[in-house]
Formats: sequence, C-alpha cells, structure tokens
Amino acid sequence: MKLERTISKIKSVDKESMKLAKDRQDTLTKPPGSLGMLEELSIRVAGIQAKALPEIKHKAVITMAGDHGVVDEGVSAYPREVTSQMVYNFIRGGAGINVLARHMGARIIVVDMGVAADLNLEDGEAFRSKKIAYGTDNFIKGPAMSREDAVRSIEVGIEVVEGEVNKGLDILATGDMGIGNTTPSSAIVAAITGREVRRVTGRGTGIGDAAFEDKVRIIERGLKVNKSNPADALDVLSKVGGFEIGGLAGVILAGAANRVPVVLDGFISGAAALIAYTLTPQVKDYMFAAHQSVEVGHVAILEHIGLRPLLDLNLRLGEGTGATLGISVVEAGVKILREMATFAEADVSESEDKGG
Amino acid sequence: MKLERTISKIKSVDKESMKLAKDRQDTLTKPPGSLGMLEELSIRVAGIQAKALPEIKHKAVITMAGDHGVVDEGVSAYPREVTSQMVYNFIRGGAGINVLARHMGARIIVVDMGVAADLNLEDGEAFRSKKIAYGTDNFIKGPAMSREDAVRSIEVGIEVVEGEVNKGLDILATGDMGIGNTTPSSAIVAAITGREVRRVTGRGTGIGDAAFEDKVRIIERGLKVNKSNPADALDVLSKVGGFEIGGLAGVILAGAANRVPVVLDGFISGAAALIAYTLTPQVKDYMFAAHQSVEVGHVAILEHIGLRPLLDLNLRLGEGTGATLGISVVEAGVKILREMATFAEADVSESEDKGG
Repeated sequence: MKLERTISKIKSVDKESMKLAKDRQDTLTKPPGSLGMLEELSIRVAGIQAKALPEIKHKAVITMAGDHGVVDEGVSAYPREVTSQMVYNFIRGGAGINVLARHMGARIIVVDMGVAADLNLEDGEAFRSKKIAYGTDNFIKGPAMSREDAVRSIEVGIEVVEGEVNKGLDILATGDMGIGNTTPSSAIVAAITGREVRRVTGRGTGIGDAAFEDKVRIIERGLKVNKSNPADALDVLSKVGGFEIGGLAGVILAGAANRVPVVLDGFISGAAALIAYTLTPQVKDYMFAAHQSVEVGHVAILEHIGLRPLLDLNLRLGEGTGATLGISVVEAGVKILREMATFAEADVSESEDKGG
Repeated sequence: MKLERTISKIKSVDKESMKLAKDRQDTLTKPPGSLGMLEELSIRVAGIQAKALPEIKHKAVITMAGDHGVVDEGVSAYPREVTSQMVYNFIRGGAGINVLARHMGARIIVVDMGVAADLNLEDGEAFRSKKIAYGTDNFIKGPAMSREDAVRSIEVGIEVVEGEVNKGLDILATGDMGIGNTTPSSAIVAAITGREVRRVTGRGTGIGDAAFEDKVRIIERGLKVNKSNPADALDVLSKVGGFEIGGLAGVILAGAANRVPVVLDGFISGAAALIAYTLTPQVKDYMFAAHQSVEVGHVAILEHIGLRPLLDLNLRLGEGTGATLGISVVEAGVKILREMATFAEADVSESEDKGG
C-alpha cells in the first residue's frame, strides 16, 4: 500500500553532498562558521536534495483543514464554522498564510481533509477536496476515526505532495486549519511522549482558566477511553487524532521520500511530525522546525524528535505562517552556499589562524 | 551643527498611529495576538512612520568599513588588508551581505569610513568614499581619533542616510566591515555599561585562548590609558571607537530623525547603537535588534538599551547579514497589518470569548 511504499522510499540523507557543501562553506569569504545556522541549514539541504549545490526555486505551503468532534465539548474559543469560513478566506487570499506566502514567493495548496461543511469550491491549483468525513468523531466517546481512515488521511497527504513534486518542488511548508485542533494535538503528544496531559496542553486560540481545566480533563478522558498504543502511530492517530493531522503526517513522509526539505509549522504540524517520526524515525533528517510555538506542548515535540527551532516570535496562529517564515531562513542558507564568492575567487586573504 | 540638529529632530513615535494599528490587528482574521511579535513589529513601525497603515517598499543596507590601529597588537585572526579586499568583494556582489540583500530585495550602500588603503572605486549608488583617515590610531597609545573626527564620523553617517531618504527609504539595516572591530566594540561596551572587559569580549572572527587573553588585556589597557567619560558618548567614541562605528551611530540617529525604522545587525552595530542611545535615549524606539550575536558582549548591549532580538541563528559575520534577515521579519509584520482581511471583510465568526 501507498503508505508502506512511501516509508520504504525514505533513504538516508546524502553524506557525500553534505561533505562537499561543508567544504565549500569553508572556502567562502567569511570566517568559517560565522553564518552559524545558515551554514548548517545549507549543508542539511544538500544532504536532503543529494546535491552539493542545492537549490530552492519552487516553494509550496500545504495547508490542511479538518474539523473535530471533540469541539462539542467546548474546547475552543471559536465556533466550528470558522474552519470552513477560513478555508474560503484562504482561497480569497485574505488570511495570514496568504500574506506570508506571497511575501516569500511560495504557492499555497489548501486541502479539505475533513471540514464539517460542504464547501462551494472547485478543485484547482490552490484547492483540493479530499474530505474523508465531516469532521472526526468526538474522542471522549470512542476513536476519532477508524484505522482505515487514519491510513487514508496519511495517504491523501502523500498524494497531494506527489502531485506537487511533478510540478516542481524544492521545499515544502506544512500548515493547518481546524477549530479545536490543539486538543487532539495535545492528546497525541501525551500519548506518544508519555508526558502528563497538563504539561502538554495550552490555551489554543485563547481560552480562559476554567475552559483550560475542562480541556485538560477532556483530553485525559479521551486518552483513558481510547487506550492507544504509543508505539503504534496509526493507532494514536485513529484514536485521538484528526484528518488534517494525518494528512500532514503524509505530507512530511512524502517530502522525505521525494528528497524535499519539509519546514514544519508549530504545534499541530508538530503533532503530525510526531506521527510521522513514530512511523519512521529516519524522517527526522528531512524536517526543519520553523519556530517555537507559544503552545506549551510544542517543546515536548521538539525535544522528543530532537529538532531546534529556527525562530521564536511568539506565534500561535498555525495555517503554516511560521513555516513560511522558516522557508525564507532555509533559503537564505542555501543562497549563501550557492552565491557567495570563495576566498580564491574574490582574492581575499584567509585567516592567519590564531587558533592556538 | 548637523549632529545636534539631527538629535533635536528625533521625536517620539506616533502613539495615535500605533493605536490605530493595534485596533486593526485585533480585527484581522486570526485570534488576537496569535501572530505575536509580527503584530508588535507592525505596531511599532506604524508609530515610527506615523502611519496607521505603514508600508515597506524601499529597503537599504548601509555597510560601513573602517580599519583599526589596535590591529597592530594582533587582536584579529585576519590581516588588516582583508577590510579593503572585502570592500571590493561587496562591490562585486560576492559577499554574504550581497547574497542576503538580493534575497530580501534591499539595496546596499558601502561606505569607506576609514579603510587603511586607497580604494580604486568610484562613488556611485553602491559606494561612497567618505574616508576620515587611513584607519584609527592604536588606542592603547592614546585616543583612537580626535573628538572632531568622532563628530565627523557620525555626521557622515547622517549625510549618507539623508541622501538615501531622498531616493525613497522605508527601512534601514546597518552593517559593518573592519578587521579588528570587535576590539573597539568591546571597549565601548565596557566603557558605557561599566561591565568587566572579560565579560563583554568574545572571539571575533575566531581567535584561540591565548589570543583572547591578550585581547582582554589590550582592551583593559586601552580603557586605562584613555579614561573615557561613560556619560559622554563622543568621548568614548573618540577614545576607543572606530570610524565605521561612529558612522553607524550617525545612520541610526538619522534613521530616527527621518522616521525610518533601523534594523541593527549584531555586535558592531550594537556598539554604534550604544553610542547613539547614550547621545539620546529616544532613539531606542526606532531600533530593532535583528538577532542575538554569538559575541558575548552583544547581550550587554541589548540589556542596556532594552531590546529583544528577533532571531537567534548563531551569526557572527557582521556586514549587515543578520540585519537583512531581520528586515524580512519586520516586513512580514507590516504586510500582515496591511494585507490581511478583517473578520467583517471575510465573513468569519469572531471568538465566543471563553476568556472567563
């Protein structure tokens, strides 16, 4: 099946290209290492693309939308309708992600993974209808979705990326939209990392103290009712996940399988990354954490996988906004590697090595 | 004189524009505050430009170059010739700052403030010859420059910005090139903040332990020989500063006087910011710290002025590289404010206010 084929396609990053990229970084007209993470990013992209001189021209943000049965429990400050309203906003170009994608020269693909409304939108460059259901089931009453639908959601993500790869794709950003989706994300983090629910649960779009206590209790109950197996990512996704989260896990896996760097947005994308990482830890080398989200559970995700965020701007919007800013930083590193002159080319004297 | 006229032109940021910008941020289709620092940046730029809807179209990086007499003491891993060699590299477009300025769509102006060589370059859009001297004097033997030259260096920076403002300028980034210039920068930080030299001195372009100990001793001796008055920024600049540092202080003051946001690069630009801030604390509201430099003394600068860095990417190259990345983040915030749809425009439901 597509999921297994994709996982088996994920190879190690190319060490030879990384070595050549590192060697070149050290000949560029700057003290070695003085561009810090920009240098490291360029070397990692070299390994991912298996090119000593990697290139980033075609950029895409994939923003996946889905609704959540658990919103019936009152876990969000916003009504469920906002998910579909925001999908229309994405298509009209008025949302945060539209502004930032234009700023960075990235195309956006919005995917309906499971919005709880019929969307009056035609499939095209910017929109794909891939609805698995009208939202997940309420996970405090049983699994959010069947195991088959969990697999299906991941495979939809894979298909979307495969379509984009055919059009030209050098870097990917992940994004999400789904009222209530910090709740399943916290549930996934607690299930996989084993941390206490309270320590990985935040305020989402902005709930108060009483609503926060309710949210913690609801997640704890969902985990107790469903008893997911932390080593089985498909089980966790089906029990307490979401369609857009599964879709994004597929996006991450397909990026890795196609040697495309994947820049992760914040908490929801991080929950998807946890699912992908639990399925195959090798995916780690293809992922970049764009930023440190305000959502407290995001730290647990980054620590569990071992990723260091590029930015820390107090973001908590989602949609791919942080990831899109991250693309620009990764791109800056790649351009440094490609475009800077070497000491020899520029006739600049090298260090006298006072390293003693 | 020009310096006093410029300082007196610096007014408070416009509170009314900031209030209007804040009000608009709260009507955009996102949970209020969910774009964190991007929102704050847009509000501050509104205050600086005195426009409720600020705009960033014309971007410039001003990179100032100068040499340092104290390099005779062996404080740098690179020979003095590299300063002029790098100026040629800037003009040919092969340096790190060229790559990043192209990436961000900013023009570069390279200024010879005091390079210790005759440069075979004609004045033009990208280069200004404003040489005050062939490098500063060695500050362990007496003042680096006269008080008149300190004033002159600042006024040159002001003139350069005034010329750019006439061409259209919505945001400025500062940058430096000068072999050995972390040494005068550490001296300035120690002199103005009163911190121990050892605590504000770093490895610059990459010196070893023994050279580091020498560097600390040389700075301590320079400060002892010169006895600068920490409350008199012109005295500190003339005793232990540099021509490019004075020039950048002028750039910062002129940015503020002309209501242009100034994005500071790392340690050397920070030393210039300390000079500007000591001359007039009001300049603070016009400055953005692009990143946290690897140079340890940079923390002291940001704490003294009270600035929070936007990025932390382990950069220590200078030239304006970090500041140029910072421009893109500030620009992202401004575009969010200008281009996002409001809840009313997009017909999206607002929060049900679970704030209780």
